Amino acid sequence: MVLRSHVEWALHCCAILSGIPEGRYLSTKALAEFHGLPKEYLSKALQALSHAGIVDTTLGPSGGYRLAKLPSDITVLDIVEAVEGKARTFECTNIRAANPCRPSGFCDSGPCAVARIMWAADEAWRSSLRNVRLSELVATVAEDVPAGIWKSTGEWIARRAG
Amino acid sequence: MVLRSHVEWALHCCAILSGIPEGRYLSTKALAEFHGLPKEYLSKALQALSHAGIVDTTLGPSGGYRLAKLPSDITVLDIVEAVEGKARTFECTNIRAANPCRPSGFCDSGPCAVARIMWAADEAWRSSLRNVRLSELVATVAEDVPAGIWKSTGEWIARRAG
Repeated sequence: MVLRSHVEWALHCCAILSGIPEGRYLSTKALAEFHGLPKEYLSKALQALSHAGIVDTTLGPSGGYRLAKLPSDITVLDIVEAVEGKARTFECTNIRAANPCRPSGFCDSGPCAVARIMWAADEAWRSSLRNVRLSELVATVAEDVPAGIWKSTGEWIARRAG
Repeated sequence: MVLRSHVEWALHCCAILSGIPEGRYLSTKALAEFHGLPKEYLSKALQALSHAGIVDTTLGPSGGYRLAKLPSDITVLDIVEAVEGKARTFECTNIRAANPCRPSGFCDSGPCAVARIMWAADEAWRSSLRNVRLSELVATVAEDVPAGIWKSTGEWIARRAG
């Protein structure tokens, strides 16, 4: 069970978009160039973010993307679910119902123990991602990146934002 | 991101195998019949459990599977990882390294913030599954299932165990 690489791309793009000046947009081309990614594939990830209401988009020569909300109002889970969907990672097909010892017509009163345990783990994963805001992710990146690179990165983004 | 259906099958089979009498084995055929599953596909899941040392297997007409350890010494995570592997669900391809503002030869001192956050969520998922023993799963199933069905299921398993 592996997440799509689009998850990594979407998270990095949202972190970068949190740094563009108010009212400006960053193009798919600039985001692809910054991350060394194929523009055509990256645009699919950006469209998923747009579809989920995380980014706004404009068309035209100065078109591109910007965050639709404050970074403090976007969680990492919002971004992951925009790409991967909200479905649980465990699908219960209720195989217990095949038990030959069940009286015919027997109806279970709730989901089975296996599903409950797997869904609880799924919720632990989601809860961990829900507890981190994009603003916190960006603050952590700012601590990680040397000041000189952080400054020139901000200037690069501001220069490319249309 | 969805787990393979083999995860569901393996968990249910381990729960059933915890009920067979000491020293006996249950065949793939019986396990497939009990759960209404295709024998050929189920055998792949059972082989994965065998490969991970969770079940012992014998060949021959009375061959089959039994747990290789006590149900209290097997966690739900052991069973899930036997089928899905131990790899993290988030693969970091370090796309930050493409940042055009980095001096050439710049080397990161550790994994990036995005990967750390995603791996922490992965560990929350694994920790949730590691905290449930097979013995606890079976105890929960025993509480869920009406006493009459539980008793006749135990008798069915004992009858089929070679």
